[in-house]
Amino acid sequence: MDETLRTRQVVHAYVDCAERRDWAGFGALLAEDVVYEMPQTRERIRGKPAFLQFNTEYPGDWHLAVRRVVADGRHAAAWLDTRVGAERQEACVWLEMSDEGLISRITDYWPEPYEPPAGREHLVERW
Amino acid sequence: MDETLRTRQVVHAYVDCAERRDWAGFGALLAEDVVYEMPQTRERIRGKPAFLQFNTEYPGDWHLAVRRVVADGRHAAAWLDTRVGAERQEACVWLEMSDEGLISRITDYWPEPYEPPAGREHLVERW
Repeated sequence: MDETLRTRQVVHAYVDCAERRDWAGFGALLAEDVVYEMPQTRERIRGKPAFLQFNTEYPGDWHLAVRRVVADGRHAAAWLDTRVGAERQEACVWLEMSDEGLISRITDYWPEPYEPPAGREHLVERW
Repeated sequence: MDETLRTRQVVHAYVDCAERRDWAGFGALLAEDVVYEMPQTRERIRGKPAFLQFNTEYPGDWHLAVRRVVADGRHAAAWLDTRVGAERQEACVWLEMSDEGLISRITDYWPEPYEPPAGREHLVERW
């Protein structure tokens, strides 16, 4: 199978399995030595068991949906719409695949709302 | 030329032209009706003239470098290392191309550092 196509399918399956709490399916997509990073908090999780535990223990009634997946060889980026209860947030996820087509590296960004700086009101509209 | 390859080249050129303040080159990559959005501040800029002005007026000694570009047909994602003076921040940028291979939509996320929630110290390392 074409590498980009395989990567795209794996990333969709990663999000879908998490949303369905299909942890067997989710784990089957991960390399044993997967590394998960959240640069905003400078947190890193190493290895499939710890990363699975992180996900299964993650608190709240959280939901994930793909807004867009961009796949390019062994690399991908996923733009997600997430929700915990009534609170919605977008996420930007960067992924890398191993030789075997398993997810070997995941970097999550959780950008939060902030107030725009002054001085550009003449160029922008708000929503 | 292959659409994905063209998209990848345009995205690299977009970052490189901005970094070099090559506004003629930068503008030549943009569709006339380009839409730029920053969802964190709910700001939107419409059209090439306003978006060019936004960039040329952007304050500070800012610098951009590509960490990764993922291109997939007319879609791309760019992971950037940015710096203003000594302050460094990563950015996640989502791009779409027009029929003519020009950038028609840009969505920027500027994720800021935050403190991790309690309860996952047993799974993570910090850096």
